[in-house]
Amino acid sequence: MIIVMKSSAKERDIENISEVLSKHGLGVHISNGSAATIIGIIGDKAKLGDVNLELMDGVEKCVPIMHSYKLASRDICPEGRIARVGDQEIGGNALAMMAGPCAVESEDQIMQAALGVKAAGAKFLRGGAYKPRTSPYSFQGMEDEGFKMLRKAADATGLKVVSEVIAADQLDVAAKYCDMFQIGARNMQNFRLLREVGRSKVPVLLKRGISSTIEEWLDAAEYIMSEGNYNVVLCERGIRTFETATRNTLDIAAVPVIKERSCLPVIVDPSHAAGKSAYIAALSMAAVAAGADGLIIEVHPDPKSAMSDAAQQLTPEGYQSLFERIKIVAQAVQRGI
Amino acid sequence: MIIVMKSSAKERDIENISEVLSKHGLGVHISNGSAATIIGIIGDKAKLGDVNLELMDGVEKCVPIMHSYKLASRDICPEGRIARVGDQEIGGNALAMMAGPCAVESEDQIMQAALGVKAAGAKFLRGGAYKPRTSPYSFQGMEDEGFKMLRKAADATGLKVVSEVIAADQLDVAAKYCDMFQIGARNMQNFRLLREVGRSKVPVLLKRGISSTIEEWLDAAEYIMSEGNYNVVLCERGIRTFETATRNTLDIAAVPVIKERSCLPVIVDPSHAAGKSAYIAALSMAAVAAGADGLIIEVHPDPKSAMSDAAQQLTPEGYQSLFERIKIVAQAVQRGI
Amino acid sequence: MIIVMKSSAKERDIENISEVLSKHGLGVHISNGSAATIIGIIGDKAKLGDVNLELMDGVEKCVPIMHSYKLASRDICPEGRIARVGDQEIGGNALAMMAGPCAVESEDQIMQAALGVKAAGAKFLRGGAYKPRTSPYSFQGMEDEGFKMLRKAADATGLKVVSEVIAADQLDVAAKYCDMFQIGARNMQNFRLLREVGRSKVPVLLKRGISSTIEEWLDAAEYIMSEGNYNVVLCERGIRTFETATRNTLDIAAVPVIKERSCLPVIVDPSHAAGKSAYIAALSMAAVAAGADGLIIEVHPDPKSAMSDAAQQLTPEGYQSLFERIKIVAQAVQRGI
Amino acid sequence: MIIVMKSSAKERDIENISEVLSKHGLGVHISNGSAATIIGIIGDKAKLGDVNLELMDGVEKCVPIMHSYKLASRDICPEGRIARVGDQEIGGNALAMMAGPCAVESEDQIMQAALGVKAAGAKFLRGGAYKPRTSPYSFQGMEDEGFKMLRKAADATGLKVVSEVIAADQLDVAAKYCDMFQIGARNMQNFRLLREVGRSKVPVLLKRGISSTIEEWLDAAEYIMSEGNYNVVLCERGIRTFETATRNTLDIAAVPVIKERSCLPVIVDPSHAAGKSAYIAALSMAAVAAGADGLIIEVHPDPKSAMSDAAQQLTPEGYQSLFERIKIVAQAVQRGI
Repeated sequence: MIIVMKSSAKERDIENISEVLSKHGLGVHISNGSAATIIGIIGDKAKLGDVNLELMDGVEKCVPIMHSYKLASRDICPEGRIARVGDQEIGGNALAMMAGPCAVESEDQIMQAALGVKAAGAKFLRGGAYKPRTSPYSFQGMEDEGFKMLRKAADATGLKVVSEVIAADQLDVAAKYCDMFQIGARNMQNFRLLREVGRSKVPVLLKRGISSTIEEWLDAAEYIMSEGNYNVVLCERGIRTFETATRNTLDIAAVPVIKERSCLPVIVDPSHAAGKSAYIAALSMAAVAAGADGLIIEVHPDPKSAMSDAAQQLTPEGYQSLFERIKIVAQAVQRGI
Repeated sequence: MIIVMKSSAKERDIENISEVLSKHGLGVHISNGSAATIIGIIGDKAKLGDVNLELMDGVEKCVPIMHSYKLASRDICPEGRIARVGDQEIGGNALAMMAGPCAVESEDQIMQAALGVKAAGAKFLRGGAYKPRTSPYSFQGMEDEGFKMLRKAADATGLKVVSEVIAADQLDVAAKYCDMFQIGARNMQNFRLLREVGRSKVPVLLKRGISSTIEEWLDAAEYIMSEGNYNVVLCERGIRTFETATRNTLDIAAVPVIKERSCLPVIVDPSHAAGKSAYIAALSMAAVAAGADGLIIEVHPDPKSAMSDAAQQLTPEGYQSLFERIKIVAQAVQRGI
Repeated sequence: MIIVMKSSAKERDIENISEVLSKHGLGVHISNGSAATIIGIIGDKAKLGDVNLELMDGVEKCVPIMHSYKLASRDICPEGRIARVGDQEIGGNALAMMAGPCAVESEDQIMQAALGVKAAGAKFLRGGAYKPRTSPYSFQGMEDEGFKMLRKAADATGLKVVSEVIAADQLDVAAKYCDMFQIGARNMQNFRLLREVGRSKVPVLLKRGISSTIEEWLDAAEYIMSEGNYNVVLCERGIRTFETATRNTLDIAAVPVIKERSCLPVIVDPSHAAGKSAYIAALSMAAVAAGADGLIIEVHPDPKSAMSDAAQQLTPEGYQSLFERIKIVAQAVQRGI
Repeated sequence: MIIVMKSSAKERDIENISEVLSKHGLGVHISNGSAATIIGIIGDKAKLGDVNLELMDGVEKCVPIMHSYKLASRDICPEGRIARVGDQEIGGNALAMMAGPCAVESEDQIMQAALGVKAAGAKFLRGGAYKPRTSPYSFQGMEDEGFKMLRKAADATGLKVVSEVIAADQLDVAAKYCDMFQIGARNMQNFRLLREVGRSKVPVLLKRGISSTIEEWLDAAEYIMSEGNYNVVLCERGIRTFETATRNTLDIAAVPVIKERSCLPVIVDPSHAAGKSAYIAALSMAAVAAGADGLIIEVHPDPKSAMSDAAQQLTPEGYQSLFERIKIVAQAVQRGI
């Protein structure tokens, strides 16, 4: 932490701050710039406890110089982590390919989807059983019945199940059916839920909040990791901006930024970013070229009849053809698939 | 719902859509513009169930023309609703003045705060017992102990307690101590929680999500109201934008927009919007002049020692002096206080 | 400027930076924090010329601690500046009230508008002769003919003319007809134009760019002032955010922020912020309550026939009635009008 | 254009609107939905001239259904346009590779840069002679001297010159030295400048404004094309959002959106988007994989001494190595280079 003093700060103000810091076992380095005095704090800021320096007389602002996350940082694991979901790895050389419908709608629908994405080459079956929806009058998902259908389709095809959880009290049931819990964008800062999935042993796919900064996203991952669950995978899915041509704005730069700052794998969801199936191929290939560790793509056996987010779902055939194109880009950046 | 066809749409495409609509008991009005054909749907769109028209051949886009919320809309209650919290009203002529510290920190701190804000003229005591924090390493609140301290301070001073709840499983306990539940910005789309507070009989203060549109906010209110709890008060607290001079950007226009679209009372939180105590007076007076039904302001007996959000908390004296200035602006717009 | 070193920085890296700084006549203060070393620069950073410290080995980031504007800062003129437009003052106790149509459309239209706003109590007549429009196929203004009509209407009513200029080569002509030049939001960073109005002697109304930070806005004012023209008035007119309920999001907090950081007067344009006449009254009163030095409001004798931005223009009668309400709020905050 | 009536609209309101429309030679199609009446306008909306329907009694809102640009639209040229800059093409199979320093600083600097980027395989030399800078106290470019140095370096190496122009009155001089004019992000809505480059015969690289929607960007292109200059190339360079980890947020989806809506070629500027050289490789490869027609990358012979934007410039060696990686991704998406 650095304290920048106002140009009008008095000698006495600086002495006061020094006293407070030394009383808390912290050292100071005072730098009398020509325009302002800067006080650098030496030692662990946590020792300050409840003292708020920004309110002390003469203080212009306090500038944090460290990230607040530790376990999720690159420093702690420079080679990067690999998340393990059963016998599958995420974050190694091979891309993790996840696909399936936005929502589980029926046993037949999810089975058809599973067969289609398996045939293309995917290793994970996605599908929402619990659907957070903006309006209370929209379809809210098949809930636990949906989990069962997912499990059955996944078992029949040899896929892993990744599905959203929305509340702490459902985790025990969900863990019976899911190989990986998804935390949706709206719950990225549902800290109670983050702590609970952190206490479970189930791998977690943590979507970025629609208006969360990368730092807040890593802080959210830290909530999970601080409870002992290190099997966390980040998922960039677009952020909210002024642009309305796409549903969200895919922040493709989040991929290299995460690779620099964090040890966690990061995949991309081009479907929610685009909101329109016509743009999914371009975003998928961009994500792989940028260094993403995988893709989660919405695939529905009959998109026209989908009960949610129909405009952004591919057919199984569309997915298979996209999969082949992705393979070629993956090779170009020396990734397996 | 209006369907705009592509300029390249074929006669057959339009016939297909008409067939689908009539099969679902809906009428159509086709308008052959010189540039594009428009299909207007006659009847209740809900009859369409799972049919997604946007994916049908020839369709350029579908334009919704109705709001998705009903109970929260102005249409249903043109005179506006008044929320009742015990013997207090929110949404009538008198402004609802809520104040107190960001977080409950000790029995003494909350009692001092209660005495101070009561002396100024406030009717509601705010204070966080459960604190959602960005980092897992920050102070997370005193939890149920905090609720008890709040209740005691409120009872001693004759104030109502408004405090944040963060999970469905805590509502029974929280209801013992709180007169009004606050749903924080991060939980505005925690639909499970919204439904549960909707099932309770406790009045709800619903903060706007940091990047939620006004329409999404009203949809969130609809979640609560659709469960039978109509005692909902909205709270504008600033949105996330590119500007960093303030913690958030207070969307002051949300006040007249809400008054036009919704029957619900709306108050303003200048403290979280500003993030800096120096700006709170200006924002408070602006909110009252714009027609807000009240203000929720952070007041701490000793801001310099506050354990969270210290920079934005007023002293009791600062609040009392602000209260007097607000009173004058309230009179100017013919509001009591 | 503060230099934050990477935790992996080597002793040699720090020595290198110290050498570079001392070679340029700058002092250093090195602060060995437990987590990172911080180097504070002592002296005028400008001495560094073209050296970019952020690229030197071991550097994590450089944190500026000073504003880049000087003449526009509050420090240089703590009591605040008053802009003078003929015998009118902006920034003193009395609010500067500006009103008139979005665009000048005819001699009759602007004369009717002038009579209407004069009758209400306004002192400035606004009206666009040059209209920057998003599409080349939209009405682009009456250009110099419009200036002449403005002048005539203003002379007949005793109002001052404020009108937008869009290019350096039109300033000589524009200066014959305008008492105050308006720089529109789209030209806030047209630096060539800023310099030229800075070289003129005509007072300038500088609108905030649609996505400009307050710091960038003050830098733009500095461009004008650095050429010798100190008669600059800032105008907050809403910023671009994700919210679509209003045309732009009025950043009401910009008023107290400007008052804190800058010596320049600041007025508010509620019309462009709202984009809808129904919200203008609320925003106008909020602006005055927040401490704005004036208001610029769109008034058209016949809004339904307006050639641009019709939805946001008031009738003269609407303006007169609003004016009376504003007067009462102005009194409440001890301002004249 | 579609007119959505309020649910409270009266029969008489609808008749009024129909009368106005038919008086202007337009047809109507009235659709009595169960919730609201919709009026579709048949014919060219331009016939309405100055009539503003949104202000007529009973009108809820007007929904445009057509783009305002025509020449820039895909409809008019479904196969896409190829821009020609001398013997170079942009928009064909081969990627257009542009590179060079942010600013021209000296004859030696630009010559070294030209040699370096030519050796890598670039065909265009970029370099700013006129530099719009946020602060008046920053380096503003070498102006016409810079143009001459660019020309000399380009002639010596067989590259095309692309450089920014900032005012109409400099175009004659600039045209002597530049093969392609760049319109910078800050000038994307400097309509006077757009018209003038439209009247010139020089190809134009049109950068997207920092907070411009894709529709506004295409409207800006339409300004140029409507004056007869069809040699326009769009350049996505990142938009302003709440995220601060990168200088701007690269809107990678703009590439497929432009390909769908417009006939114009689109290239990507990863340097201004990233703001940090470490992220440029990832963004460059993502852009090519997404279908961009080229890349403009900042390369400086000695980034540490660069006079502007140093943190985002690559060395010639860095560029050469990136060029080889881009080549492989280009092959994967069947593009030449």
